[in-house]
Amino acid sequence: MALRGGIDLGGTKIQAIVVDDDDTILGQARRPTPTSGGPDDVIRALADAQREAAQAAGTTPDALAGVGLGSPGDVDADAGTIAQAGNLPDWHDAVPVGDLLGTLLGTRVAIGNDVSVATKAEFDLGAGRPYRSLLGVFWGTGVGGGLILDGEEWLGRGAAGEIGHMVVKEGGAKCPCGRRGCMEAYAGRKAMELTARERHADGEHTRLFKIMEEKGRDRLTSSVWAKAIEHEDKLALHLIDRAYRAIATAVASAVNLLDIEAIVLGGGLGVRFGEPAAARLAEEMQPHLFNDERPPAVKVAELGDYGGALGAAMLVWP
Amino acid sequence: MALRGGIDLGGTKIQAIVVDDDDTILGQARRPTPTSGGPDDVIRALADAQREAAQAAGTTPDALAGVGLGSPGDVDADAGTIAQAGNLPDWHDAVPVGDLLGTLLGTRVAIGNDVSVATKAEFDLGAGRPYRSLLGVFWGTGVGGGLILDGEEWLGRGAAGEIGHMVVKEGGAKCPCGRRGCMEAYAGRKAMELTARERHADGEHTRLFKIMEEKGRDRLTSSVWAKAIEHEDKLALHLIDRAYRAIATAVASAVNLLDIEAIVLGGGLGVRFGEPAAARLAEEMQPHLFNDERPPAVKVAELGDYGGALGAAMLVWP
Repeated sequence: MALRGGIDLGGTKIQAIVVDDDDTILGQARRPTPTSGGPDDVIRALADAQREAAQAAGTTPDALAGVGLGSPGDVDADAGTIAQAGNLPDWHDAVPVGDLLGTLLGTRVAIGNDVSVATKAEFDLGAGRPYRSLLGVFWGTGVGGGLILDGEEWLGRGAAGEIGHMVVKEGGAKCPCGRRGCMEAYAGRKAMELTARERHADGEHTRLFKIMEEKGRDRLTSSVWAKAIEHEDKLALHLIDRAYRAIATAVASAVNLLDIEAIVLGGGLGVRFGEPAAARLAEEMQPHLFNDERPPAVKVAELGDYGGALGAAMLVWP
Repeated sequence: MALRGGIDLGGTKIQAIVVDDDDTILGQARRPTPTSGGPDDVIRALADAQREAAQAAGTTPDALAGVGLGSPGDVDADAGTIAQAGNLPDWHDAVPVGDLLGTLLGTRVAIGNDVSVATKAEFDLGAGRPYRSLLGVFWGTGVGGGLILDGEEWLGRGAAGEIGHMVVKEGGAKCPCGRRGCMEAYAGRKAMELTARERHADGEHTRLFKIMEEKGRDRLTSSVWAKAIEHEDKLALHLIDRAYRAIATAVASAVNLLDIEAIVLGGGLGVRFGEPAAARLAEEMQPHLFNDERPPAVKVAELGDYGGALGAAMLVWP
């Protein structure tokens, strides 16, 4: 039996797994993504996480048939390089991660885009199994998208799926990407936090930052948002309303363009809010759907925290 | 040599052609689309147009290998039916146009969506030839879209390409479709005319309706808009600015989602305004493109008035 490794490299954490031929997880390890240093430190942390996951599975990295890595940034799968990873420390130019990580682990490494591999995993193993065409919507720090069309990943010229940067309001709010009116300007965790901080500084009452401190966090994580909403915090509710509206608008536009069968909602916030979020997304999309008598199915991602790493492990058997 | 017929059924005119194996047009005929009566009258007009085109090509309809029809509305290609054609007189329920027209012409009839077949024609024979993936944008009464992905038409569940109903402004202008903020609410000829009439009735100065009368028209055709712009009519310029902005926003969103290689701009207004319109669309898309260092090519449709009929004729050899 050939074992494979899979690593999901996120802005806050690294998730590594080892799977068998049936994609059953035999071992896993998680560690924080380095926030200082540079690419070398991140690559070392990737190797450490994969090594630990292999150990948990009773093996060693060099015994694996290969390791797949799902990464943010500008991923060149053929060259094995990653560039412009804005959420990783000091990562600008293309770094040959495939070769460097492969040398550290003693096995070959295949690289893919984090959102694309997570969408592929949901399509093959998760909530997307009943469908031939779907859009994965990963609602977290930003809002990423992945497309499966007629059973195949659609990557365009390599950078398809930027659903967070579909425009929902001409001349609208400023997005962390620098553009105006992007869906992510309203719905990304990072953008929502920026808006909340601004309004709080302007004297608007909110418990968001008190909850953040109580939880010992330095940013508004999905659990902080969930808690604030439980307490019916007015600003939190308002910003979450805006976020749902923006996601629903962009996703409805995507459905009008592509007429796909299903939406799979994942990501930190998507999975945290779960079924009620999927129901709300479906409801808020409805007024914008051109074919409103047959809306697409809206499902919550089933693979949770392991989706990215499972999709990465699939890169090893292309 | 097998000859084929092709008919483009539009809201204002019917264009019929006869082509040979190389898609060379051997005969053509054009007539107005009936604006009163019902489906029977339209089908009779289709048959008359195809008969006249066949005559011009020195043949008869029953000698054709088949006839393709590109139609608006809800087209069921397998069943050969058309329903819900809003721009055609009294056309609601599904009508078996394939069988009815086939009987009148004495040959088999294949049916497709008007915008899809026009996009396919530009991909195979026109401005789209150098590309493997493109979006056709047909700017006319409404704004229709057609997708070619990796060399194949993408129809989704049968209704893909509704680029005119991608949302460019949450809570924005009312669209003729009844929804809010659709691109077509700003850019469709019909919506632009409604806005112009309202503003004119409210006392705003414009030469649009004077030009319309001078040209003996009862609606603001593309040539009326072109003339008003030549005269630097303020309202016309304002509404055209809005239209470009809306098309550019929706198309940029589509590019961010799909990362396609090219846009082909067609339709009555698109072809009328031509190269300057393509250049302007490219320029106004730029601020919204996520990968702004490699924008898609923006080309004007090359097949002009015959694109729809040529694409329809292609339906005969599927």
